[in-house]
Amino acid sequence: MLVVMQQGATDEQTQAVIDRLVSLGFTVHRSTGVMHTVLGGVGPVDEMDPADFEAMDGVKECHRIVSPYKLASRHFRPQGTIVKIGKVEIGGPHVVTMAGPCSVENRDQIEKVAEIVAQQGAQIMRGGAFKPRSSPYSFQGMGEEGLKLMRAAADRNGLLVVSEVMDHTQIPVLIEYSDILQVGARNMQNFNLLREVGKLRKPVLLKRGISATIEELLLAAEYIMSGGNYDVMLCERGIRTFETYTRNTMDVAAIPVIKKLSHLPMIGDPSHGTGRRDLILPMARASVAAGADGLLVEVHPDPDHAMSDGAQTLTPGQFTEMMQQVRAIAAAVGRTA
Amino acid sequence: MLVVMQQGATDEQTQAVIDRLVSLGFTVHRSTGVMHTVLGGVGPVDEMDPADFEAMDGVKECHRIVSPYKLASRHFRPQGTIVKIGKVEIGGPHVVTMAGPCSVENRDQIEKVAEIVAQQGAQIMRGGAFKPRSSPYSFQGMGEEGLKLMRAAADRNGLLVVSEVMDHTQIPVLIEYSDILQVGARNMQNFNLLREVGKLRKPVLLKRGISATIEELLLAAEYIMSGGNYDVMLCERGIRTFETYTRNTMDVAAIPVIKKLSHLPMIGDPSHGTGRRDLILPMARASVAAGADGLLVEVHPDPDHAMSDGAQTLTPGQFTEMMQQVRAIAAAVGRTA
Amino acid sequence: MLVVMQQGATDEQTQAVIDRLVSLGFTVHRSTGVMHTVLGGVGPVDEMDPADFEAMDGVKECHRIVSPYKLASRHFRPQGTIVKIGKVEIGGPHVVTMAGPCSVENRDQIEKVAEIVAQQGAQIMRGGAFKPRSSPYSFQGMGEEGLKLMRAAADRNGLLVVSEVMDHTQIPVLIEYSDILQVGARNMQNFNLLREVGKLRKPVLLKRGISATIEELLLAAEYIMSGGNYDVMLCERGIRTFETYTRNTMDVAAIPVIKKLSHLPMIGDPSHGTGRRDLILPMARASVAAGADGLLVEVHPDPDHAMSDGAQTLTPGQFTEMMQQVRAIAAAVGRTA
Amino acid sequence: MLVVMQQGATDEQTQAVIDRLVSLGFTVHRSTGVMHTVLGGVGPVDEMDPADFEAMDGVKECHRIVSPYKLASRHFRPQGTIVKIGKVEIGGPHVVTMAGPCSVENRDQIEKVAEIVAQQGAQIMRGGAFKPRSSPYSFQGMGEEGLKLMRAAADRNGLLVVSEVMDHTQIPVLIEYSDILQVGARNMQNFNLLREVGKLRKPVLLKRGISATIEELLLAAEYIMSGGNYDVMLCERGIRTFETYTRNTMDVAAIPVIKKLSHLPMIGDPSHGTGRRDLILPMARASVAAGADGLLVEVHPDPDHAMSDGAQTLTPGQFTEMMQQVRAIAAAVGRTA
Repeated sequence: MLVVMQQGATDEQTQAVIDRLVSLGFTVHRSTGVMHTVLGGVGPVDEMDPADFEAMDGVKECHRIVSPYKLASRHFRPQGTIVKIGKVEIGGPHVVTMAGPCSVENRDQIEKVAEIVAQQGAQIMRGGAFKPRSSPYSFQGMGEEGLKLMRAAADRNGLLVVSEVMDHTQIPVLIEYSDILQVGARNMQNFNLLREVGKLRKPVLLKRGISATIEELLLAAEYIMSGGNYDVMLCERGIRTFETYTRNTMDVAAIPVIKKLSHLPMIGDPSHGTGRRDLILPMARASVAAGADGLLVEVHPDPDHAMSDGAQTLTPGQFTEMMQQVRAIAAAVGRTA
Repeated sequence: MLVVMQQGATDEQTQAVIDRLVSLGFTVHRSTGVMHTVLGGVGPVDEMDPADFEAMDGVKECHRIVSPYKLASRHFRPQGTIVKIGKVEIGGPHVVTMAGPCSVENRDQIEKVAEIVAQQGAQIMRGGAFKPRSSPYSFQGMGEEGLKLMRAAADRNGLLVVSEVMDHTQIPVLIEYSDILQVGARNMQNFNLLREVGKLRKPVLLKRGISATIEELLLAAEYIMSGGNYDVMLCERGIRTFETYTRNTMDVAAIPVIKKLSHLPMIGDPSHGTGRRDLILPMARASVAAGADGLLVEVHPDPDHAMSDGAQTLTPGQFTEMMQQVRAIAAAVGRTA
Repeated sequence: MLVVMQQGATDEQTQAVIDRLVSLGFTVHRSTGVMHTVLGGVGPVDEMDPADFEAMDGVKECHRIVSPYKLASRHFRPQGTIVKIGKVEIGGPHVVTMAGPCSVENRDQIEKVAEIVAQQGAQIMRGGAFKPRSSPYSFQGMGEEGLKLMRAAADRNGLLVVSEVMDHTQIPVLIEYSDILQVGARNMQNFNLLREVGKLRKPVLLKRGISATIEELLLAAEYIMSGGNYDVMLCERGIRTFETYTRNTMDVAAIPVIKKLSHLPMIGDPSHGTGRRDLILPMARASVAAGADGLLVEVHPDPDHAMSDGAQTLTPGQFTEMMQQVRAIAAAVGRTA
Repeated sequence: MLVVMQQGATDEQTQAVIDRLVSLGFTVHRSTGVMHTVLGGVGPVDEMDPADFEAMDGVKECHRIVSPYKLASRHFRPQGTIVKIGKVEIGGPHVVTMAGPCSVENRDQIEKVAEIVAQQGAQIMRGGAFKPRSSPYSFQGMGEEGLKLMRAAADRNGLLVVSEVMDHTQIPVLIEYSDILQVGARNMQNFNLLREVGKLRKPVLLKRGISATIEELLLAAEYIMSGGNYDVMLCERGIRTFETYTRNTMDVAAIPVIKKLSHLPMIGDPSHGTGRRDLILPMARASVAAGADGLLVEVHPDPDHAMSDGAQTLTPGQFTEMMQQVRAIAAAVGRTA
């Protein structure tokens, strides 16, 4: 923690800051300059809010100099994390595709999707059974029945399953059917949920909140990891900005940024990232070109009649085309897909 | 739902849209213009996502023309809602103040706060026992013990209590000690929680998410109300923008906007809205001037040593000054405070 | 400038940073800590971009510790600036209202407006003769002819005139007819224009850009003041955010923030700040409650037929009501209006 | 223009809207539904602000159904525009690279850059002679002398030149030395400048403003094209969001969006798009993968001592690596680079 005192701050004010830093476990170095006195506080993990010091009398500004996350930081595992589930490795040289419908709707739909997804070389099927919907009047998902259908379809096609957990009370049913638990964007700061999935030994796909900074995403990962569950994958799925042509603005740069700051695998979601079917292919290519370890995309046998998110869902034909294009891009960056 | 077809859209494409609208329960009016065919679909509640139609072949654009919320809408109760708890009325001519620390820390602290709050004429004490914190290493709240201390202090001073519920499993303990359940900004779209508090007959203070639109806030209120709990109060507490001088950008205009769109009482939170102690007074005045029915502010006997949010917490002296200023502004807009 | 070196940064890397700071005129203090070496550089005005240091090898992060603006800073004139034009004082105890149409349209319109504005106690008439319009096909303003009509109408009613200059080549014609030159939001970083109005001895009303930070607004003021023109007034007129119900999000907190950081008078513009006629009154009240020294609002004899910005323009009746309400709020904060 | 009347709107209110639409040159179709009356107005170019109708009594909402731009629209030239300058074609199968320093600093620097740029296969050299700088105390560019040096260096190496025009009074000097005039992000809505470059027959590189929507960018292009200058190239260079790790958030999706909406060539600028040297390579790859027709990047012989923007400037070695990677990605999408 670096605290810069105002010009003319009194010794009492400076001492009060020093006392507070010491009481919080910091070792303090004082540097008296021509215009400003600067206090450097060194502590174990720097989770204090700089604003708390800036509110003190005589303080000009305050900056954190140690990351507030530790386990999620690249320093913790410089070589990078590879999440291994059976034969599938996420975070290694192969770019992994997770594909499937927004919601599981019925047996026929999910069986058809599983076939397409497996045929085109994706390794993981996505599909929601518990759906967070903005309106209480919208379709809320099939629940456990949907999970069963998806598990059966995945098994028949040699696929893994990723599905969203909306609430910690849903964990028991989710872990029975799903290989990866997805924590959705709206729950990125549902700290009770993060803590509970942190107690599991089951991989977690953590999606960035629509207004979460990269630092907040890494802190959310830290919550999970501080419970002992290190198999966390992060996902960029678009942030909210002033631009309304796309549903969200996909922050593609977050992919290389997070690969630098953290050792965790990074997935791109061009379906939610753009909200528009016609943008999924170019943004899937861009994600892989920028260094993504995997893709999460929505595909449905008949997107125009999907019960949710049809606008951002690929047809089987478009999905086939995407996989071809993604393979070409992966090869261009020295990977496979 | 208004669907505008592209110039040159074929009859088959137009018919496909009509068929889909009809299958969703809409009555469709077709208007063929020189350049565009426009389809107007009328249905009970318009919760479809316009993007789903925009993804169909031949469609240029699509707009919703009926609000996706009904119970939260001003039409539902044109005269406005007054939430009554004992002798306290929120939404009436009196501007209600809810004040207290970010977190309950110990008996001495909460007793001191309760006295100050009551002395200055506030009617409701706030205080967190379960704290959502960005870092897993930060203070997470005292839990039930904190609620007990707060209830006792409030009772001794004739105050009501508002406290945050982070998770639906915390509801039983919260309703035992708290008069109003607060749903925090990070949980505004925790739909399971919304649904569960909707089943209660206990007033709810629902805070706007930092990146939630006004429409999304009203939809979140609709979730609660659709369960039968109509005693919902809304709260503007700042949104996330590019400006970093303040912690959030307080969207003061949301106060009169929501008073127009909805019948629910509207509270301003200048502590979270700005994140800076020196801005709470002017923004409390601005909130009341803009039409707020109440204020939610943080006050602590010694904010510089508060365990959380000290930077945005008033000292007792500043709180006293705020109450005087707020009374003057309330009088200027024909209310009391 | 504070430069924090990475853990494990080499002496050569540290020395390279020191050398660069010294070459830029900074005096450098080095503080070697357990984890990080911190370099504090003190220079006259700190206009370096911290990112330039962060790109150097071995550097963890860099922060500016001296404001990049000097003349616009509150320290420069702790007592505050009052801009005096004839008998009108902006920045003193009286809250000054500037009102008029978006565009001057014809003699009849501007004469009617001038009468209303003067009758209700406003002291300055606004009106555009050169209009920045997003579309090349929209009405672009009457030019000099419009300025003549406005000057005549203002003179007949004892009003001052404020009008926008879009380009430095328009300065000669503007200064002939206008008492205050407005630099619009889109031109807040038109540095050639800022430099040229800085050479004048004519008051300038500088509007915040829709995506400008408070610091950038103060730097834009510094451009003007560095030319010797100290009569600068700043204006909050809404920033661009994700919320679309209002045209912009009015950052009311910027009013007290700028009053603290700077000595310059601060004006609120609830017309552009919200883009909606029905929100102008509450946001005018909020602006004055938050400490604004003046208001800038659009009024037109018949806003529904205004040639531009009708949606955010008051009718004469609404303007009359606004002035009454603003007077009540001004009194509540110890001022007149 | 589609106008949706409120439930219960009177005939007089509906007629007033019809009258206004007709007076503005629209042909109006009225469709009376169960809940809402909808008025469809068809006119030549739809540049009206929907908010102006929404402010009228009885109106619920209003939507524009015809693009406000015509010449910039894909419909105007479905096959796409190729800007040809000598042997260089922008918008064709070859991805064109424009590279060079932020500012021209001296002969030695610009000669070195020109050599590197040409050696690596870029065809156009960028370099600023007139610099828009946030602070009045920062380096403001070499002016005409800088242009001369750049022209000479470019000619010696068979390169074209692109340089920024900040103000219409600089046009005469710019067109003497530069093959492409760049209109910078801060000037995207400097309408006088747009109009003046529209009178030239010289290609223009128009950069998106940091808070400009895609529609506003296309309207700015329309300004230029409406003057008869159709050789316009557009550039995505990052927008302002809440994320602060990067200087801007590069809206990569804007590349395929604009390729769909418009026929104009689209350039990606990963230097300004991210503000960080270490992100330029991945984001250059992502831009080309997403469909960019060209790249604009900053390169300098010694970026750590560049007079501006060093943090986002490549070293010669990094530039060489970027060109290799970009060639691989271009090949993967069926293009050359």
